[in-house]
Amino acid sequence: MSTQRPKVAMIAAGVTQWGARQATYRDLASEAGKNAFDSNPNLTPKDVDGIIASSVYPERSAYQGKVAPLLAETLGIRPRMFERVENQCGSGTAAIRTAQWAILAGAADVVAVVGVEKMLLPNPGEVFTNALAGLDRDWEGALGVTPPGAFALAAKAHMQKYGTTEEQLAMVSVKNHAHSMKNPYAHFHKGPDLDAVMNSRPIATPFKLFDCAPNTDGAAVVILANEDRAKELSDNPVWMLGSGQGFDAYTMANMSRDWSYWPAIEQAGRGAYESAGLSPSDVDLLETHDCFTISEILQYEGLGFCERGEGGHFVESGGSDYGGKVVVNPRGGLLACGHPIGATGVAQAHEMFVQLREEADERQVDGAQVGMSLTMSNIGSEAHCVLWGTDEVAAA
Amino acid sequence: MSTQRPKVAMIAAGVTQWGARQATYRDLASEAGKNAFDSNPNLTPKDVDGIIASSVYPERSAYQGKVAPLLAETLGIRPRMFERVENQCGSGTAAIRTAQWAILAGAADVVAVVGVEKMLLPNPGEVFTNALAGLDRDWEGALGVTPPGAFALAAKAHMQKYGTTEEQLAMVSVKNHAHSMKNPYAHFHKGPDLDAVMNSRPIATPFKLFDCAPNTDGAAVVILANEDRAKELSDNPVWMLGSGQGFDAYTMANMSRDWSYWPAIEQAGRGAYESAGLSPSDVDLLETHDCFTISEILQYEGLGFCERGEGGHFVESGGSDYGGKVVVNPRGGLLACGHPIGATGVAQAHEMFVQLREEADERQVDGAQVGMSLTMSNIGSEAHCVLWGTDEVAAA
Repeated sequence: MSTQRPKVAMIAAGVTQWGARQATYRDLASEAGKNAFDSNPNLTPKDVDGIIASSVYPERSAYQGKVAPLLAETLGIRPRMFERVENQCGSGTAAIRTAQWAILAGAADVVAVVGVEKMLLPNPGEVFTNALAGLDRDWEGALGVTPPGAFALAAKAHMQKYGTTEEQLAMVSVKNHAHSMKNPYAHFHKGPDLDAVMNSRPIATPFKLFDCAPNTDGAAVVILANEDRAKELSDNPVWMLGSGQGFDAYTMANMSRDWSYWPAIEQAGRGAYESAGLSPSDVDLLETHDCFTISEILQYEGLGFCERGEGGHFVESGGSDYGGKVVVNPRGGLLACGHPIGATGVAQAHEMFVQLREEADERQVDGAQVGMSLTMSNIGSEAHCVLWGTDEVAAA
Repeated sequence: MSTQRPKVAMIAAGVTQWGARQATYRDLASEAGKNAFDSNPNLTPKDVDGIIASSVYPERSAYQGKVAPLLAETLGIRPRMFERVENQCGSGTAAIRTAQWAILAGAADVVAVVGVEKMLLPNPGEVFTNALAGLDRDWEGALGVTPPGAFALAAKAHMQKYGTTEEQLAMVSVKNHAHSMKNPYAHFHKGPDLDAVMNSRPIATPFKLFDCAPNTDGAAVVILANEDRAKELSDNPVWMLGSGQGFDAYTMANMSRDWSYWPAIEQAGRGAYESAGLSPSDVDLLETHDCFTISEILQYEGLGFCERGEGGHFVESGGSDYGGKVVVNPRGGLLACGHPIGATGVAQAHEMFVQLREEADERQVDGAQVGMSLTMSNIGSEAHCVLWGTDEVAAA
């Protein structure tokens, strides 16, 4: 199935309870780290010789930099390879790719990828200021562009061009909130119905409150290994079959002229499909970046699960839910789990770990063999994508 | 000479004027980028398919995150691989290592490593707060540990254990400030003599003002390529012969009990020597991390240029100057060039580029064939090291 035997596997994974947490960076990382080590009794911190930290603005929210050494010490790891990476909301998946490079280059054999973010601060104004660091400061953030406003432009463009409706947007939220009811680690267990989403507080037309992912504190840890170590340390590894990144532009003014089309998603997905030798029809579950409802719709299209413009119909027809073409965001997505920005991509990988090992309990995607995870930032400014597979798929 | 033919080369390099700059992140990066592209007329931004950004706290000093996409757009690069890395003051060299992994893993063929930092802000209190993000927030920074105080503890320990003198510390500063007189890009061209250093304003015993690197704005860009592209795009590439990282601990309380010995430096150096198949006697020039004068002395020892405890004598005897065993910090080091923390390691690589191509004009190290660069953070908490060589050495 794949073009070559994959060389990097995931052998452990853990997440914290996500939500409004009275916890430091250290607290969150150690909670997720403990859960990751608990997921694999063969593995101890001594086996880990590398660490990639994914954290977006600890300097702002915790007055703390140099987080890779901090997290290494917290987890009891003495690394010969360590790095902290940041690619705004896309960081978690980018961190997993960085760990993949380090392993392929021989810089480390077993690497912990630690995503952690403190989002909720006593002063809400500071939360807002921090979020703006993800937009262009000189030309956009300083002039009043905010994430809800930016994504609303994309939603309006898609509605205008393809007839996508506010109800279809809301269906993404209903689906993902329904999924999170079966995920004890999610921030929210509210399960709003379509009326509740449609009647929630207006944020930025066409978005209501439930169209938007919340600010959330949380952490996630996954542990990757090269082929030899993966086989030694795990009976049931989950393999990285391929990965890719996509770039459109930084400044919104320089992006693709049509905001209803995000070429960076396509590029990232293509990189993953081509390096894995797979196509969308092989994918059983997708963890994707539903920071706003429109994002998930554009990702169905960009990743090839439906035609361009068909994303609204795809969710409405059940194509992205259990029993459909691909189960999207079974853990509840950013909308219901929350979005501690550096941790999100790592938590998506955790979901791959439990789903592809059939350990996802009530939210198990039946017979899941191949999964895809994707995170990105701004309205498709850039994206990072990984394809994951079971041992059986990897051996094929 | 090396254990295997190196696979990654540096094919272009540029720096900005360093100092107190009235310039944005974009301004600094584009100035360094232009200089890098000007260094290689065969190369255009279209040839570059990856970017690694090294920047430590743009979120604090410029309210700006997601700097890899920002810098890609600024330099006219459309990357298929991009990442921003942070390892506090060690970031620049860590970024070069990350680019090396990405190239070896096939994620990109030609990678721009862009280091940029704005340090000087209108409010000096904010500069101070930002610097503290490099220390442990929960247990150290919040309780009053500052960089000068921390490094002074190491200096006092070395003085007590080995009889190192304040004059020997000062000689590091005199040497590096003398070197910067021949580097037009350096922040300072003051050339203080021993008396001037010894009589400068007290900072933290035993440090005076000239024992400390200043806060500086600046940027540096180097462009790395895989073997095939390097040969296509450059007649005179500089090769990465080896690299390594070293880790001691995050919290000072957990570091090596003897603060006059920094094992992370040794580990990083050993990684570089072993992967290159070289030893200290092969090294003609060393760009190292003289954030405070004691740091350079401990790096002579940790990297094997003199015995442990002998660092003070080594500088006093001229061992680290032109005509000595190894020329250390020919561009002027952090003490005289300044230390825009994310850019420093990248600027050290730029010095390797000009020295190993015999383009360093008045500060040329005669017959330089092999160079080493190292950056680190706190008092040897962690370190990153690269060995560089001429085409001739790489082919041997």
